[in-house]
Amino acid sequence: MSAVSAYAPATVANLAAGFDILGLALEGPGDTVTARLSDHPGVRIAAITGDNGVLPRDAEDNTAGIAAISTLKRAGVDVGIELSLHKGLPIGSGLGSSASSAAAAAMAVNLLVGSPLRKSELIEPCLDAEAHVSGRHADNLAPALLGGLVLVRGVDPVDVVRLPIPEELVVAVVSPDFVLETKKARAVLPDEVPLSAMIRNSANLASMVAACFSGDLSLLGRSVTDEVVTPARAKLIPGCTEVIDTALSHGALGASISGAGPAVFALCRSRRSAREVGAAMQTAFAAAGLNSVLHVSKATAPGARRVSL
Amino acid sequence: MSAVSAYAPATVANLAAGFDILGLALEGPGDTVTARLSDHPGVRIAAITGDNGVLPRDAEDNTAGIAAISTLKRAGVDVGIELSLHKGLPIGSGLGSSASSAAAAAMAVNLLVGSPLRKSELIEPCLDAEAHVSGRHADNLAPALLGGLVLVRGVDPVDVVRLPIPEELVVAVVSPDFVLETKKARAVLPDEVPLSAMIRNSANLASMVAACFSGDLSLLGRSVTDEVVTPARAKLIPGCTEVIDTALSHGALGASISGAGPAVFALCRSRRSAREVGAAMQTAFAAAGLNSVLHVSKATAPGARRVSL
Repeated sequence: MSAVSAYAPATVANLAAGFDILGLALEGPGDTVTARLSDHPGVRIAAITGDNGVLPRDAEDNTAGIAAISTLKRAGVDVGIELSLHKGLPIGSGLGSSASSAAAAAMAVNLLVGSPLRKSELIEPCLDAEAHVSGRHADNLAPALLGGLVLVRGVDPVDVVRLPIPEELVVAVVSPDFVLETKKARAVLPDEVPLSAMIRNSANLASMVAACFSGDLSLLGRSVTDEVVTPARAKLIPGCTEVIDTALSHGALGASISGAGPAVFALCRSRRSAREVGAAMQTAFAAAGLNSVLHVSKATAPGARRVSL
Repeated sequence: MSAVSAYAPATVANLAAGFDILGLALEGPGDTVTARLSDHPGVRIAAITGDNGVLPRDAEDNTAGIAAISTLKRAGVDVGIELSLHKGLPIGSGLGSSASSAAAAAMAVNLLVGSPLRKSELIEPCLDAEAHVSGRHADNLAPALLGGLVLVRGVDPVDVVRLPIPEELVVAVVSPDFVLETKKARAVLPDEVPLSAMIRNSANLASMVAACFSGDLSLLGRSVTDEVVTPARAKLIPGCTEVIDTALSHGALGASISGAGPAVFALCRSRRSAREVGAAMQTAFAAAGLNSVLHVSKATAPGARRVSL
């Protein structure tokens, strides 16, 4: 085997009260990495497509490259590898672009060298990649690797919990034509949080988890709220508050910013509802002067996997 | 029917990362209130036993009295009622003494006037009582009323979620002979919490909830940790840190302060383990110069209920 391709999905992180803790894999958009054995030692990036030329080509400065290097190191395998990355999702959109590239690269490299690491063991190398671009958090990369809805209990050491998802749940994600750098979105975060806000946010996160297990969609919807991170970030995204309000008034169970934004997600009771909610959200973004793209996805989407190219 | 008696159990609140949010009912110790119809209008406290004379006898200044008054008001019933309260659990111990009195009183009064309110509707009158003595929190009173393990999503409006409990789970609670006023225990709380601490605490709380649903006792144990409230309060309780460490080194899944303290609880895999862990915790309190009482209770204990006197 001299070449393997792997795909990893886009992800919605945070999900309101789960800042840095909770993330969900999406069907459809995602990144694909092909890893090829090479006589040249080390990891090299041969090509990147779909990024409009903005991503670094140096493997040590690119999340796919860093994840590949770290995967080889943890596997104790010393081979030369050439990576080709195809970006299937927009950069800086709040859909876990860096995590998707890292997860696809880690998956492809691990498969190429005979799968010495289990899938969950690829979280560590992907964390190295995330740490380089946006901080040591696994809320995008854990679902990008494992699929579904994942709770990140901790990253030192890695401790992740896969959560059940109510079968009928569908996600509408509206991604506006507006770039919000993760670093800028992180800069508005408060250093400290009032104890009372911590209590309410924790209670909502815990209730979301309970609702996922019990299938109580009403509780799930009530719990999709955050008073710590979302209010600060909403100010950076034109129309954000109106888009969220529109989603709720059109029947979404809950809605908030996807990851660091600017994308906004809504949890809906059916695919039909998600399409209606999504269309209304697009109209609200348009009123703020932004074109947008709508993705509708089952909430139970698979994670990184081998693909044939 | 001219008299009704009701009992409500002691409770362990907070459970580490669930400050003001999570509470668990215990078997055994609890308060009992007898409510009698009286020709005298309003609510009057006829007798209190088991309190060493420390509780206020004025109904408007006593949690049982306040809960009774508020229950009648919410039920829209205007009768004279005389209460007798027997304290079966120590005051200021961190076992939800005020909530137990309030829950027993609300239950007895509601039964006496023909149960116009559902059990969950008694949370509001009990909140009025708690607000008077320690703050508007329902983490003791919700399990004291409903039994089992309860997640309090919010109190304005009341929104509580009953959580499943792994069948084999047993709680050891060691109550030292040391009074810690709730007000003093509240005074050491930080006004603000670092965002990073909020993230870790929320993740632990969410993981506890997931573990209760999935029955993953190892995850449950790992999640019984708190870096926000417990470290501040541990300093107020002689031997506290050693007692918690002793519980863990003797096989407890997790251990922390019960409510505002000074009692310390440990979650254990069996009744036998809970007895061993509890005895070791008592030895550790003794080393700090404190006598203590051990309660061992199944984690699935019922809430407030009618009793015959």
